[in-house]
Amino acid sequence: MGGGQELPQRGGQSQGDLLLCVLPWPHEECEKSIALIKDDFPNLEVKFIRDTSKAKDHERGPVDVPKDLYKRANILATLAWLPSTASASPKVELIQFFSAGSNHIQRHPIYTDSKIPLTTASGIHGPQIAEWVIMMDLVHGHKYVEMYESQKRKEWAQAKGMDVTDCVGRRVGVLGYGSIGRQVARVAKAMGMDVLAYTASPRPTPESKRDNGFIVPGTGDPDGSLPSAWYSGLHKEGLHEFLKQKIDLLVIAVPLTKETTHFLSTAEFELMHESNSKGTYVANISRGQVIDQGALIKALEAKQISGAALDVTDPEPLPSDDPLWDAPNVLITPHVSGSSKAYSQRAFQVLHENLRRRRAGGKLVNEVDRKKGY
Amino acid sequence: MGGGQELPQRGGQSQGDLLLCVLPWPHEECEKSIALIKDDFPNLEVKFIRDTSKAKDHERGPVDVPKDLYKRANILATLAWLPSTASASPKVELIQFFSAGSNHIQRHPIYTDSKIPLTTASGIHGPQIAEWVIMMDLVHGHKYVEMYESQKRKEWAQAKGMDVTDCVGRRVGVLGYGSIGRQVARVAKAMGMDVLAYTASPRPTPESKRDNGFIVPGTGDPDGSLPSAWYSGLHKEGLHEFLKQKIDLLVIAVPLTKETTHFLSTAEFELMHESNSKGTYVANISRGQVIDQGALIKALEAKQISGAALDVTDPEPLPSDDPLWDAPNVLITPHVSGSSKAYSQRAFQVLHENLRRRRAGGKLVNEVDRKKGY
Repeated sequence: MGGGQELPQRGGQSQGDLLLCVLPWPHEECEKSIALIKDDFPNLEVKFIRDTSKAKDHERGPVDVPKDLYKRANILATLAWLPSTASASPKVELIQFFSAGSNHIQRHPIYTDSKIPLTTASGIHGPQIAEWVIMMDLVHGHKYVEMYESQKRKEWAQAKGMDVTDCVGRRVGVLGYGSIGRQVARVAKAMGMDVLAYTASPRPTPESKRDNGFIVPGTGDPDGSLPSAWYSGLHKEGLHEFLKQKIDLLVIAVPLTKETTHFLSTAEFELMHESNSKGTYVANISRGQVIDQGALIKALEAKQISGAALDVTDPEPLPSDDPLWDAPNVLITPHVSGSSKAYSQRAFQVLHENLRRRRAGGKLVNEVDRKKGY
Repeated sequence: MGGGQELPQRGGQSQGDLLLCVLPWPHEECEKSIALIKDDFPNLEVKFIRDTSKAKDHERGPVDVPKDLYKRANILATLAWLPSTASASPKVELIQFFSAGSNHIQRHPIYTDSKIPLTTASGIHGPQIAEWVIMMDLVHGHKYVEMYESQKRKEWAQAKGMDVTDCVGRRVGVLGYGSIGRQVARVAKAMGMDVLAYTASPRPTPESKRDNGFIVPGTGDPDGSLPSAWYSGLHKEGLHEFLKQKIDLLVIAVPLTKETTHFLSTAEFELMHESNSKGTYVANISRGQVIDQGALIKALEAKQISGAALDVTDPEPLPSDDPLWDAPNVLITPHVSGSSKAYSQRAFQVLHENLRRRRAGGKLVNEVDRKKGY
């Protein structure tokens, strides 16, 4: 290519295509993933540029991408970097973002003025965030913090580790049954728990229950078959019906929108308390603002809920004088649950899947609907 | 009964049978479980005596069981108490122990001189101990202790929570694929892990892979289908073959016997290190003596393994000046992983199952083989 003859796409193969990767990780970290793609697409040319700017918006920053490369590129793999306009990359047929969303580029001309298919890496956070939820619930139920403090004192404090609440027969309510919630459900179910799902819109048919986004192989609930019941609604009525179901572990995994801001407040904590006198354990891995934090502190102090595990707070970072730090039975981590050493590898899996779908002529996975904004 | 006419067993129903429970828990804690049994066996008379002695051997202690009751009883449910001889309870056809084993009564005349079927509550510890293993592995992989220490300092230490190792694609090796190991496997599989099993004897056929003991419903691996490979042997050759499989999480769940004493020592830690340079994480929930503790400390100090989670040590309690407390990357809990608020409820489930099997004329679950001793 590069002025040469355009090769015909034989049997859907990406003959002579150029994949340009502009990514924040060292090349070595990505080599294995790229090799897997090249095994599958032997004629695909791959160029890798490290984006040292790690810019989270569309500012080009100090990354220097040779013009010749993006002029020739057919596929772009990027976290944030983009050519200035679609015409600067006239051959691009697919832009695979390595971020879960596309908010950071929604004002870029390629988003607003082009029709180049954009795909995200949504779904790749499922396993690690689900593990965070399961870990925190176990740390609470098995009293691990007390055990850890005893270890530090070199104390064999057996009596403190008794009366553990294990998971069999407990009920998890997943508020926002997306890729994270579905993986929480899979693990919770394996531990003997009952699963209730909650989504913004009803999912009455098998088709509507499916997860159509990228799923890390071997995880999640692809066909939505794990919940014993499914609740829905963006209004408090639907939420209240859900919260009346004697939930033991409430997992908050809804996106932050106007409707979900302070979705959980005084009335909701009171409902949980009425429904489950043993106390619901609340885990939040979405956004701090989904919970009315003042109401949460009161609910913790009044023991209306048994505790809370929060990876997100309002605001972030949580100031050191915030009263949330001193609330009883609260475990706080600093917005780290999405972190994983496997991040880049999984994002490459999404790209790989999209290259396969492009070859086969199928629908792309995680394609952004520019009107909806996700 | 009680000298009256013996009622015929109609359709296998336990008409007029007496179930005598001599148990350490308050009656209230057991009422719900007893009610479930009575729903199923409406003509079964149930008498409950609280064994306040909580004796762990067959000594009667201060518990006062009216002679008339054990003379009439057809079924006994007990943790440790027993009538002095079989002839003191001439009608007993089944003794259900609420302990996982029967070691504590193996010198009692009922064990040595009678043929009364004895059943144990083996299998009821699976869920809580498996949860302990999963929790400790997550605490290690997700660096939770660092997060917890940051929380205590009211610090938003995001950088410390990065580079988490999540479970997808990792490999768990279960040394001792019994009720606990099978439940670890179920949860690990749901988290995207590969499972290897190890048993004393080979399990080449589907029948031999099955778990024939009591299984908490909805948990475990009843047909042994989860492992991708199965290893076996009571000699080091078999163990070494297993340890060469690049295991990320090694779960020690073998019973302590002559052969398994110091089953893991210097050579084994070296093998693990050779096989998995990232470092195997070792979790021990069996008995401290299965590991050569001196060799473990050296392996931790030399970073041959990535860490160890120990619910059992050698000796117990671990003295406060034992060097194990100061070994790097070790998490110790004081032999509490089997604790669960659901203990008595689950033991009643085993009894219930055996009452059903007795009615249906089937084989009892968890029947003790007096010759094997378990």
